[in-house]
Amino acid sequence: MNEMIKRQLDHRTIREFTDEPVDKKDLLDILQVANRTATSTGMQGYSIIRVTDKSKREEISKVCNQEYLKRVPELFIFVVDLFRNSRIAREQGHELASEGDMDRFFQGFSDAMLAAQNSTNAIESKGMGVVFFGSILNDPDEIVRILNLPKLTFPAVGLGFGYPNQEPQLKPRMELDLKVFENEYKVFDNYLEEIAEYDKVMNQYYDLRDANRRVDTFSLQVVKRLEGVMEKRSKILNSIRRQGFDLQVE
Amino acid sequence: MNEMIKRQLDHRTIREFTDEPVDKKDLLDILQVANRTATSTGMQGYSIIRVTDKSKREEISKVCNQEYLKRVPELFIFVVDLFRNSRIAREQGHELASEGDMDRFFQGFSDAMLAAQNSTNAIESKGMGVVFFGSILNDPDEIVRILNLPKLTFPAVGLGFGYPNQEPQLKPRMELDLKVFENEYKVFDNYLEEIAEYDKVMNQYYDLRDANRRVDTFSLQVVKRLEGVMEKRSKILNSIRRQGFDLQVE
Repeated sequence: MNEMIKRQLDHRTIREFTDEPVDKKDLLDILQVANRTATSTGMQGYSIIRVTDKSKREEISKVCNQEYLKRVPELFIFVVDLFRNSRIAREQGHELASEGDMDRFFQGFSDAMLAAQNSTNAIESKGMGVVFFGSILNDPDEIVRILNLPKLTFPAVGLGFGYPNQEPQLKPRMELDLKVFENEYKVFDNYLEEIAEYDKVMNQYYDLRDANRRVDTFSLQVVKRLEGVMEKRSKILNSIRRQGFDLQVE
Repeated sequence: MNEMIKRQLDHRTIREFTDEPVDKKDLLDILQVANRTATSTGMQGYSIIRVTDKSKREEISKVCNQEYLKRVPELFIFVVDLFRNSRIAREQGHELASEGDMDRFFQGFSDAMLAAQNSTNAIESKGMGVVFFGSILNDPDEIVRILNLPKLTFPAVGLGFGYPNQEPQLKPRMELDLKVFENEYKVFDNYLEEIAEYDKVMNQYYDLRDANRRVDTFSLQVVKRLEGVMEKRSKILNSIRRQGFDLQVE
């Protein structure tokens, strides 16, 4: 097992950072890595907004309902970006309906995610830590407003990073045999039985966000998460449509 | 700049591989890395299907319209998986409408993409190369049939990998100042002017898939890609709905 894989297996979310700023040269390395990431059909359908402005961070932190977002040394928002290529086509006299179809949307969304994870690997290789902010999707319309996102763009995920000021416990994961299959999907007869051991292990894990108590078993967490419905999040396709994408739902 | 980042900056798609099989121990390392990847709210909403069966590879290769898919030493299909957690909730007596909402779908899709990229970094750290197969989405319904995917699962992306048998040229990328912005999205007055230099560089690049001729400029590629509309791809949301997801479009 090489150093890289050791580091990957040691990945944990970092939510509190030291005051040490991220060096400009490191920042550039990370952005170059993002830029080099595989991209669907070479179209590079995403952009990155680096958020340094305090009031914008304050507003984003409210959307995310995560107070510590304001304090991350660096904050990148990865956005699906079909606007740029639409402009490039239009300037050549082509205004094609496909510029905002859901095929391009998913390509751009995939590009954004791949770039975010590749950046994460670069950041961690430099001894820094990261936190993903999927919670920007609590209210995509508001993120669109804050970042002044034009039509045919859409927020995908946020990434906060810097030098860690905490050492969280490694969060247990479900066993591979429940999520890796050969040649076809495998349905189990009894999932609670299958994850009984994982439930036990998870119950031993302490989340630093509430260090005074053990976390729930995974099976209980699943139910609680499913019970926590956020209207705007469930209706994300309506926000996507408001950004000019053509859902083409029959 | 460390070794990891050097390798990331050297990333290129590999489409032809030697006959050397991927060692079982390496395969396990890669899967463990995938499993350790950040996952939205800890829900682990994805699964991996390793495809070894020849006739299934043949069928997938037809969907992808990529003949070399049949020959990749290893083929993983990453799928959005909300089925597993739905079962876990149901076995505890909860049948919640949210189990298949689009919020969970996007969380699962994100999880799948992050795991695919993290696997890619692990694979490349072992001296192997990868090719992404976004083309499995040419016909998601057919992939569902081939892999016997239950409701509340959906194909996200394929990953082929092994030891490289080719050395493709590094594919040029658009300059960072066109895709990285500070605090808000930046709209340019004239995109063709902005990418003129990139267009030139791209025009010097030879794609191994057709090494006898230069590739088009990026701006021409954009138009050609937008003109190449695939009905099933644009209508992906209908396939997603057929898999039991609740689009909640107003």
